[in-house]
Amino acid sequence: MLIKNITLIDENYDVIKDTNIVIEGKKISYIGKEIPENYNGYIYDGRNKVATTGFINTHCHVPMTLLRGYGEGLPLDRWLGEKIWPFESFLTDEDCYYGSLLGISEMFKSGVVSFNDMYFNLEGILKAVYETGIKANLSYGYADIEGRKDYFNGNAYKETKMLNEYIKNINTDRIRADVSIHAVYTSCEDSVKKISEYCNNTDMNMHIHLSETELEIKECKRRFGVTPVEYFLNCGTFKSNTIAAHCVYLEGDDFDILRENNVTVAHCPSSNLKLGSGIAPLKSMLEHDINVTIGTDGAASNNNLNMIEEINLAALLHKGVNKDPLFLSTKEVMKIASLNAAKAQGRNDCGAIKVGNRADIVIYDFDRPHMQPVHDVLANLIYSAQSDDICLTIIDGDIVYKDGIFTNIDMEKVCYNINRIKKEKLKMVTK
Amino acid sequence: MLIKNITLIDENYDVIKDTNIVIEGKKISYIGKEIPENYNGYIYDGRNKVATTGFINTHCHVPMTLLRGYGEGLPLDRWLGEKIWPFESFLTDEDCYYGSLLGISEMFKSGVVSFNDMYFNLEGILKAVYETGIKANLSYGYADIEGRKDYFNGNAYKETKMLNEYIKNINTDRIRADVSIHAVYTSCEDSVKKISEYCNNTDMNMHIHLSETELEIKECKRRFGVTPVEYFLNCGTFKSNTIAAHCVYLEGDDFDILRENNVTVAHCPSSNLKLGSGIAPLKSMLEHDINVTIGTDGAASNNNLNMIEEINLAALLHKGVNKDPLFLSTKEVMKIASLNAAKAQGRNDCGAIKVGNRADIVIYDFDRPHMQPVHDVLANLIYSAQSDDICLTIIDGDIVYKDGIFTNIDMEKVCYNINRIKKEKLKMVTK
Repeated sequence: MLIKNITLIDENYDVIKDTNIVIEGKKISYIGKEIPENYNGYIYDGRNKVATTGFINTHCHVPMTLLRGYGEGLPLDRWLGEKIWPFESFLTDEDCYYGSLLGISEMFKSGVVSFNDMYFNLEGILKAVYETGIKANLSYGYADIEGRKDYFNGNAYKETKMLNEYIKNINTDRIRADVSIHAVYTSCEDSVKKISEYCNNTDMNMHIHLSETELEIKECKRRFGVTPVEYFLNCGTFKSNTIAAHCVYLEGDDFDILRENNVTVAHCPSSNLKLGSGIAPLKSMLEHDINVTIGTDGAASNNNLNMIEEINLAALLHKGVNKDPLFLSTKEVMKIASLNAAKAQGRNDCGAIKVGNRADIVIYDFDRPHMQPVHDVLANLIYSAQSDDICLTIIDGDIVYKDGIFTNIDMEKVCYNINRIKKEKLKMVTK
Repeated sequence: MLIKNITLIDENYDVIKDTNIVIEGKKISYIGKEIPENYNGYIYDGRNKVATTGFINTHCHVPMTLLRGYGEGLPLDRWLGEKIWPFESFLTDEDCYYGSLLGISEMFKSGVVSFNDMYFNLEGILKAVYETGIKANLSYGYADIEGRKDYFNGNAYKETKMLNEYIKNINTDRIRADVSIHAVYTSCEDSVKKISEYCNNTDMNMHIHLSETELEIKECKRRFGVTPVEYFLNCGTFKSNTIAAHCVYLEGDDFDILRENNVTVAHCPSSNLKLGSGIAPLKSMLEHDINVTIGTDGAASNNNLNMIEEINLAALLHKGVNKDPLFLSTKEVMKIASLNAAKAQGRNDCGAIKVGNRADIVIYDFDRPHMQPVHDVLANLIYSAQSDDICLTIIDGDIVYKDGIFTNIDMEKVCYNINRIKKEKLKMVTK
């Protein structure tokens, strides 16, 4: 594939005008001003378009598109206890398959090429990930507050094993299995230590919720006398490469612990605002040299998986909170949404457009009126764009989305099934 | 026009499924379950679509689309002094005409049926407003910090007079002339008093910037010994119906003064965040019963005029800031974005879908994947939707936007001219 005469955001987030990109197989083989002679592959006209590396959504519960807008207007505990958990208890692998397809379609349309997920029914999610072509680090969100379950005899272990075997069998590096501990407030110390030890003895990454609400901090201190960050440190969790979602409430040594243990933060601004959790101290994290990335969280608390909105919100929010219009430049935001996340996912040849890297490329249509005029390409991309401006999403050299069409997703079938599932589950929930 | 079988957000923000709306002339003449027999006007199929009253953008500088992304990454004073003001000094009526057309197109696409504007070159803006069919309260942003100008011999007065005469001549209530004083920091007390007195003796409304930054408060206290709110109160400004943009910094009696004087606040969250101004105390304003509305501000500090994004941001932001997921329900947000603003604009038959009101209607396509499933219509509308979900915008019974097409705007011509103007001005600025 040859992308001709395009404006490119390069690996340094500099804007290179009127250049050409050649993709061979899964990789970028050439970037430059010269158009290869007699090129006989597929040629894409890049005029008035801008190519950037694909975005990586580092915290998601992808099947939760099924619960979009469900139980709105309730306090958090009633929302979870009366609405979300009962609905989820009825979800099957097939339900999660369709929920994931819907979620992945939203991600493709908003430039996401890879995501980190934490949920259950991994077989359904895996099927959707496999079919669509998206990259994913999947994990089973282990929760057992009473410590009654034996991790190694439960679904989390079983499904993680299944995932690893599947990945081995099809010999792919597109899908990775991570280990997940849901959160401090949904687990007991003994299990957390055992699961952490298990993860540390593999090459899998860890994915957790961390310091999301004030209540979580308060309860953790009451139960264990330490902050959630210290709790996971003490349990050995951070010995694995860890992505910690939220980190709204960090204090004292928390920052240093996260940096020293190379913990990556998945900043989820929409979800943190919508659930009334608060606003994460992004500036302090960056000052402490913590690896920060961006996540949409699940659609139930967002209420979409639109990464463009999430990036835009992160870019705006912390300028206001810190009263500093120069904080988080467009280049810094780009890095947070791509390269930092690729590193966290363990994908060293992703997260930037350069020769030799995977061809994970997103193309914006800059011809749309609200993208005109172009005084500053990156500013338009971060502050003016919306997800419908994305006209092409390429993953490992394959076009997965183009001009409203999903290569590998039958959207009509997906929407039909989403509505069927919604009706069925609501009947079950209200019984 | 008959809109058939549609889901409607009614005047109480309740969701009415499968209903019908008849528009006669500029007004809504019928809403109900019965479809009028033998209707022989234009029929719109409303299945899988949701109709809501059009949104009103209460603070804009519409021609500033020309400066979208210009001078990014500079501190506020350098951004204004070195970039924005020099560029603006070269703008002509024709430039502002095209800039306004571009801005109005963005507003139509994001459901805006009416806006409040503060700028100069009103003839160009007026031409765009007249041609496109949008409703607007236009004003000339008067600034004269040194008190050297005589308001009644300057452009602000001249253009406001021209506007009023034009409106009278064409006998429209679609366009209104407002009076505008840019801000406390760009005016002198004597002029503010004179302009306020002039406005108070007419039926025009007042439009000001108010308490936007910490520096503004500090300087106002240094110069006048009072807050900007007290300053304008003392100058008699609030005797006119006033829309005050921003109000990020309110203290002491400010809240009571605003309520007692029926001052409407135009909350501009994107702009306040992006410029590092801060976050307005929306919760306190509402607790003090102040009439709150939403504005996009100009595209130079946003960087678009996407009202859907602005509404979504307002709905999320204050839940997080106040750590209260129940603050600002979807119904409250809808009211803020429509009815409160219609009232502020002096348009008493606008801002809600009901029989006898103006037919200012926006229709969302709920068939799009990220709008599925529909557990809660209003939640999808406020939290999941993006501007491309809007498929129809109707103002005073006329379709101004449908499925990507603007009835009265030649977008190709607009974009051509926007780019021509951009190049010309950049040459002038760098000379």
